Amino acid sequence: MAIVLGPNRYGKAETRLVRVFRNGDTHGLVDLNVSVALSGDLEATHATGDNSGVLPTDTMKNTVYAFAKEHGVGEPEEFALLLARHFVESQPQVHGAKVSIESYAWDRLGPHSFSKRGDYTRTAVVNVSDAGTQVVSGVIGLTLLNSTASEFHGFPRDKYTTLPEATDRILATAVDARWRHAGLSADWAASFGGALDALKSGFVGTYSYSLQQTLMAMGTSVLTEREEIAEVRLALPNKHHYLVDLSPFDLTNENEVFIAGDRPYGLIEGSVVRDDAPAATTEWWL
Amino acid sequence: MAIVLGPNRYGKAETRLVRVFRNGDTHGLVDLNVSVALSGDLEATHATGDNSGVLPTDTMKNTVYAFAKEHGVGEPEEFALLLARHFVESQPQVHGAKVSIESYAWDRLGPHSFSKRGDYTRTAVVNVSDAGTQVVSGVIGLTLLNSTASEFHGFPRDKYTTLPEATDRILATAVDARWRHAGLSADWAASFGGALDALKSGFVGTYSYSLQQTLMAMGTSVLTEREEIAEVRLALPNKHHYLVDLSPFDLTNENEVFIAGDRPYGLIEGSVVRDDAPAATTEWWL
Amino acid sequence: MAIVLGPNRYGKAETRLVRVFRNGDTHGLVDLNVSVALSGDLEATHATGDNSGVLPTDTMKNTVYAFAKEHGVGEPEEFALLLARHFVESQPQVHGAKVSIESYAWDRLGPHSFSKRGDYTRTAVVNVSDAGTQVVSGVIGLTLLNSTASEFHGFPRDKYTTLPEATDRILATAVDARWRHAGLSADWAASFGGALDALKSGFVGTYSYSLQQTLMAMGTSVLTEREEIAEVRLALPNKHHYLVDLSPFDLTNENEVFIAGDRPYGLIEGSVVRDDAPAATTEWWL
Amino acid sequence: MAIVLGPNRYGKAETRLVRVFRNGDTHGLVDLNVSVALSGDLEATHATGDNSGVLPTDTMKNTVYAFAKEHGVGEPEEFALLLARHFVESQPQVHGAKVSIESYAWDRLGPHSFSKRGDYTRTAVVNVSDAGTQVVSGVIGLTLLNSTASEFHGFPRDKYTTLPEATDRILATAVDARWRHAGLSADWAASFGGALDALKSGFVGTYSYSLQQTLMAMGTSVLTEREEIAEVRLALPNKHHYLVDLSPFDLTNENEVFIAGDRPYGLIEGSVVRDDAPAATTEWWL
Repeated sequence: MAIVLGPNRYGKAETRLVRVFRNGDTHGLVDLNVSVALSGDLEATHATGDNSGVLPTDTMKNTVYAFAKEHGVGEPEEFALLLARHFVESQPQVHGAKVSIESYAWDRLGPHSFSKRGDYTRTAVVNVSDAGTQVVSGVIGLTLLNSTASEFHGFPRDKYTTLPEATDRILATAVDARWRHAGLSADWAASFGGALDALKSGFVGTYSYSLQQTLMAMGTSVLTEREEIAEVRLALPNKHHYLVDLSPFDLTNENEVFIAGDRPYGLIEGSVVRDDAPAATTEWWL
Repeated sequence: MAIVLGPNRYGKAETRLVRVFRNGDTHGLVDLNVSVALSGDLEATHATGDNSGVLPTDTMKNTVYAFAKEHGVGEPEEFALLLARHFVESQPQVHGAKVSIESYAWDRLGPHSFSKRGDYTRTAVVNVSDAGTQVVSGVIGLTLLNSTASEFHGFPRDKYTTLPEATDRILATAVDARWRHAGLSADWAASFGGALDALKSGFVGTYSYSLQQTLMAMGTSVLTEREEIAEVRLALPNKHHYLVDLSPFDLTNENEVFIAGDRPYGLIEGSVVRDDAPAATTEWWL
Repeated sequence: MAIVLGPNRYGKAETRLVRVFRNGDTHGLVDLNVSVALSGDLEATHATGDNSGVLPTDTMKNTVYAFAKEHGVGEPEEFALLLARHFVESQPQVHGAKVSIESYAWDRLGPHSFSKRGDYTRTAVVNVSDAGTQVVSGVIGLTLLNSTASEFHGFPRDKYTTLPEATDRILATAVDARWRHAGLSADWAASFGGALDALKSGFVGTYSYSLQQTLMAMGTSVLTEREEIAEVRLALPNKHHYLVDLSPFDLTNENEVFIAGDRPYGLIEGSVVRDDAPAATTEWWL
Repeated sequence: MAIVLGPNRYGKAETRLVRVFRNGDTHGLVDLNVSVALSGDLEATHATGDNSGVLPTDTMKNTVYAFAKEHGVGEPEEFALLLARHFVESQPQVHGAKVSIESYAWDRLGPHSFSKRGDYTRTAVVNVSDAGTQVVSGVIGLTLLNSTASEFHGFPRDKYTTLPEATDRILATAVDARWRHAGLSADWAASFGGALDALKSGFVGTYSYSLQQTLMAMGTSVLTEREEIAEVRLALPNKHHYLVDLSPFDLTNENEVFIAGDRPYGLIEGSVVRDDAPAATTEWWL
């Protein structure tokens, strides 16, 4: 028996980049959080601290800032592709690169004035590896609520089941969605906007008997609307809203007054995929 | 020498209330976080655990939920006034009540569908005491950025000063503002909306030589626009954006590429007040 | 009527300092988060952006680091006194300085190896003003629990009261305590350690009929043990543990199985003070 | 082309359980955060909202609390095994169960009094699936620092590299470690304690030329000390401490005064494994 090195990677996480585009008096603003992870021939540094193949993570950070000037920063998918390919192509000992970007939106208040939005964070992850290149887009923190049109009943009951059947409840979730693109080029802005709208309309338009049904509808909505997308994965917390018992105060409560609970919460996770989609080149779900 | 009880209060913090108004098919949604603190004759429970004057905090929570049904929930200032007065009026041993509310906004997606906004949190605090009743409104988390029109120079230099003078910098802040109303009634929705707009326009419209100057302009803007407001207090973190030195890479950086810093940050705090404003009836700044 | 500047201050918040003391092979480690706020003649910068009286917050940060080398870093109270006095004495336009420090403890694992503790954060705040100098020490995040020896009953009931009387419950809190020193010098390490022990023994040693009673006992314990301390203020969240109803599963639950709740929580706040204590020179509670 | 359901699961996350063991006057305390995720025949609920196979997540929560009474709560691995097996065995449509537990330690202050520790969180994850049953233990948040005995040099330099070579630096990390057990039974308490000690001694005892080398040493230390463990995976953020340039103030800084940085940070991830270890039955790294 010997003790050996298994899968490994390293990189610089959470490089915070703000890029101002000064087009005369009217400025543009891009606000990103960029993480880079590289893999390749890294046995030596693990074994003896021989760093001859270890491009410093500080260099990755510098590259993010320099590229933002040299190449500009367009859509996050594009910037991630640029960075990931750079590391693999410029460093022979690097065989894989994963670049993950969070993008924060700002609303314009004036020619050079902005107010930060906070309704969701857009994400993009590019994975370059021997198996190919993969682009994944996504959104986190998008919080949606239907105040009716949601039921939950017909479930099995065991000796630990006390939940009453519900024919009218609040359905609320904070969407964590990622979707894998079939190809490596797209109108990334239109694709993201379309997918976001499809997620919302899938949620809003579904009379729901379970959050799983809503998840399937949301994923199907994205795949129906956006042909460039091969697969959608969703993690949907069921943000429970508990009906308050107001009967001790001689008051009715016809689905009007709720406690918004913190923990525990349900968590529904699933993938919706075209049956002819190409296989993923790298694991991307978590 | 004796050891005695000083100032004290108690209450229930962070009661999470979601109130649905079912007007036929089109629903309204109010999402609040309500905290109650009471003061009065509380010596006995501190001395011996005699609770004959201690209305349970659980009752405060119940009251929040029951009032949401009985009286509805309008603007947060109104709901806070209702609750604070109730506790003082209904419990003879209670002499003071402070009700603090955070209000979370949702955008409408459909008749009963909503998406949570995240650009800021609206706040309201009502203080009822022997000295009178006071209403304070506010906003937290409103993040604003000017990508130019900001300078900082002319400051004193001591032996620990290395900061270069800046004639063009990013100015960014996450506004924490509270404003004290002169009276106890107002069109709270219009007042909040107007104050919010005034804060933004004060920030956007000021060519700034210091964040203090911007703070004064923002407060002045609120008081100029809204006559029902007596005083504005602002805590403005200076969210530093550091210019990246790209010269090692033979690149210029004419205020285009920035590091968004986390810590440390400047913190500018100040009050802007009408010189004929009535005195505050209770401390409200912190 | 005119719009004027009210109370104001500015400074650098959250300067993160790690100081290594290299005594031969065995190192010492101090890990602090230092915030500075100055007040004084600041009208000009608010009115016009004239910064001739505005020592940069960047200089405050530099001063923290330079002083850590020049003067070393002893107990946080001492370092805060040094810094606060420096700013008031070296800048004629500065009349007040508040230096707030959070101190993070590390356990020693070897001559130059450490493991971070996380059971509480020690705090120190020094306020230098025209009214005098004040030293406040404290602790946050110290989480204590008694699994019995706590009751709550005998409270008034109104129409919104449903809470049953409890003769055996869990009492748990996350202590936020601050204490004001009578003077400006003390064995700060011994004082903090003694006060911490006194808080714990006050909590552990009290058979509690209300968290208010426990608060009073904890404050009294500190003042009894530490004569250099004039006043103790405590904010004690009542971290509710709800007994689970296991009767649907034909199980008893004799105070054995609990839900640890997040929100809402009770919040008990109060001061315990010597009746002959000198008045505070500045507000320090919040 | 059809749109179909891919991999999926659902469950209840973050059920907070506090279990008191009342052995006469001296109580024991267990404090857990339990998450359950089930997979199996779930097509129907995704397609139509037919919930006949969907055991409610509320039932999972109830089961956690009921089992805490019925079976007691021992080591988290044991409790996770009990729960995961129960769901698979009692529900024919459930083929897989993942139970994840965070365990919070408390120090004893008295027979029924406790103080919460915060230096790390212990974790346990049990996965029952068609491929077998797998037990993974771990620790998160363990923050370690060596104030010397760390170098970093000999790395490749490209046009974006500016990092100077370091022959004496602080090495600090917040350990996120998980280890896979070869079997399904062990003295879980001794195993965890031994692995924790081995991680610490691997960190402390390594004169480090890269964090990768330290990672390998930590993993090797665990596998050397604990024969029941087949593989260790570590994610080690490089918590950068930047040397402050004190030369403008005519001060030296011989690795004494540091800025503790927040972002960005390095992130080193890797697995250390016995070459004869059985394959994992389910993915467990992320």
